[in-house]
Amino acid sequence: MHVIIERNRMVHDVQHVAKAVSSRTTIPILTGIKLVADANGLTLTGSDSDLSIESFIPKEENEREIVQIEQAGSIVLQSKYFAEIVKKLPGETIEIQVHDQFAATIRSGSSVFTLNGLDPEEYPRLPQLKEDLIFSLPQDMLRNIIRQTVFAVSTQETRPVLTGVNIETENGELICTATDSHRLAMRKTKIDSQDEGLEFKNVVIPGKSLQELSKILEDTSDLAEIVVTENQILFKLGNLLFFSRLLEGKYPVTSGMIPTQFKTSFVVKTKELVHTLERAMLLSREAKNNVINVKTLGDNQIEITSTSQEIGKVTEKMATDQFEGDEIRISFNGKNILDALKVVDSDEVQIFLTGAMSPFVIRPIDSDHYLHLFSPVRTY
Amino acid sequence: MHVIIERNRMVHDVQHVAKAVSSRTTIPILTGIKLVADANGLTLTGSDSDLSIESFIPKEENEREIVQIEQAGSIVLQSKYFAEIVKKLPGETIEIQVHDQFAATIRSGSSVFTLNGLDPEEYPRLPQLKEDLIFSLPQDMLRNIIRQTVFAVSTQETRPVLTGVNIETENGELICTATDSHRLAMRKTKIDSQDEGLEFKNVVIPGKSLQELSKILEDTSDLAEIVVTENQILFKLGNLLFFSRLLEGKYPVTSGMIPTQFKTSFVVKTKELVHTLERAMLLSREAKNNVINVKTLGDNQIEITSTSQEIGKVTEKMATDQFEGDEIRISFNGKNILDALKVVDSDEVQIFLTGAMSPFVIRPIDSDHYLHLFSPVRTY
Repeated sequence: MHVIIERNRMVHDVQHVAKAVSSRTTIPILTGIKLVADANGLTLTGSDSDLSIESFIPKEENEREIVQIEQAGSIVLQSKYFAEIVKKLPGETIEIQVHDQFAATIRSGSSVFTLNGLDPEEYPRLPQLKEDLIFSLPQDMLRNIIRQTVFAVSTQETRPVLTGVNIETENGELICTATDSHRLAMRKTKIDSQDEGLEFKNVVIPGKSLQELSKILEDTSDLAEIVVTENQILFKLGNLLFFSRLLEGKYPVTSGMIPTQFKTSFVVKTKELVHTLERAMLLSREAKNNVINVKTLGDNQIEITSTSQEIGKVTEKMATDQFEGDEIRISFNGKNILDALKVVDSDEVQIFLTGAMSPFVIRPIDSDHYLHLFSPVRTY
Repeated sequence: MHVIIERNRMVHDVQHVAKAVSSRTTIPILTGIKLVADANGLTLTGSDSDLSIESFIPKEENEREIVQIEQAGSIVLQSKYFAEIVKKLPGETIEIQVHDQFAATIRSGSSVFTLNGLDPEEYPRLPQLKEDLIFSLPQDMLRNIIRQTVFAVSTQETRPVLTGVNIETENGELICTATDSHRLAMRKTKIDSQDEGLEFKNVVIPGKSLQELSKILEDTSDLAEIVVTENQILFKLGNLLFFSRLLEGKYPVTSGMIPTQFKTSFVVKTKELVHTLERAMLLSREAKNNVINVKTLGDNQIEITSTSQEIGKVTEKMATDQFEGDEIRISFNGKNILDALKVVDSDEVQIFLTGAMSPFVIRPIDSDHYLHLFSPVRTY
């Protein structure tokens, strides 16, 4: 293999595929990035076997030469060093030449690196997916859906299926749900599909995969094509393919958990509530339970308090709007509410309560396509 | 005690004194910040007993009221909570009112905090220093002197005196030296002193104190007044007093270590050398010895190499200027050189070598008021 490639493009694409490489893998070949040069261009692949990312750099793009292929071939280079080296190389272009014994010389400007590599024949093949279930979403919308759900997945391995985001279709809509059993985030969106009758359920994507994917997604309305199979999902983003294993197991049916009737509801300013909770958390955080108490005051105000025996107490009043229903007191985990409010783009949120011991709902006021559900905390 | 104070000023000054408070202290009262209100204003104090910072907020400044003293008094409040709380308070002003039992109520906008405090009578007194040895330096210059020396102090407690920066006078100049015995940074400067015959030596300021001081120093030519005593140093910065304990023990005499005759010298571009070393370090870093080899090539070029048996090799050529003397090969700890080059403000540095096994010197080309000295590494 012998190629000469634009440095900036190489840095960009190596950073993407390196996201799939784990330094803690037990399979030595997977600590590397596979480079394959053929007549069409250069393909980079990184994988930790759960997650695989493949990026293709074509010879030419918009009539500009990006890669010059002097000789086809392939090699696997240690991701940790290779990614750092390309980032720091001084020249405009990078020349990579593979020798016997799986060693590569990398030249750029005044720099010459010789890196020991690994046998590309040992690198595992990427899955070949049957493209039966396909739909597409704009990249920026997909990124937003991930942002608004993935924070709510469970971080505990006791119920592995809860460490993922569940996606399913219902009446031509895509429903994305994440829950750790104390809080739940749910986001709906219309989807475009060539197939009118697109239908699937219990497709659970690991939260970790979605976090990596969201770093690669761009702020563009270009479509991402999504292929769903029984145990894999593939996101096609132009020249980049992002494969993730799906989580096994049955995702809980969450639709019945969301209350539809409420005893009390009111509207508050999102930022004001964030700041008030952040102050209240200064004291409750220490106790590690993050318990915040809210009490309605009967004059369109709520009082937010938090107490730590050792440190002290904080009390704050907040104005509400559109107050309806009964007076109520409730306690909850302030951190969970803050996490949710931070992904709300709306200036105001509406809070729906059904009782001190029942789950409650927060929705952005200007949209019904997503909601957050929380369990209260028992304080006696 | 009952005061009403501008929030921004309080946030600023609390952040400064909180730098002296350690969460790992064994003396409970020192986890707090002492607040003392009297007829003139509010004084804040933080201390970890090695380092103490006192900041005075006057009632008025430039004919603007900053603190309103309703009632004189004092209290000690937990730094960790108090500093976070004032930063997050919503109002323009903060009202602090002390009750019995050393509790304080803090009001700002819609927020009311009640914090448990400690008895201010238990707070240790700050040292009263005899102001015999006094000199002054512009704050920005003092900050630069710290930046250019403190990185070279030892981080190992085996020779405690080397964890500090030594300052001494010589012919009306201040000489600041830091060394960990493998590298040395030395910075000289003229000083202003009311006392013509100002003279002192072996004044060793803990590196940690200087790092905190440099965060407080402002980018201004306002003078810092410096008071030196046998076991304390005091920096007076306007309304802020910064006390540090001095390190005990005899600082090594370093003047004789610096070679005055050289066999080889040349000039290189500072940034180019930084980037080349950073690339070379990508491979040597892993082996944890950071060994970089330099060889002169006889045509005003040097070759920089680094080799890791496992990973590979890097070679880079660099142009030199004003080459004088013999050809030479030398190996050194690349990280030490990088640390030094990062505090050099000059575009070019001159490197002076006396042999493969002898210490060598790097100086900025446009000034003789500071230098860096390094021990080479034996590679066979």
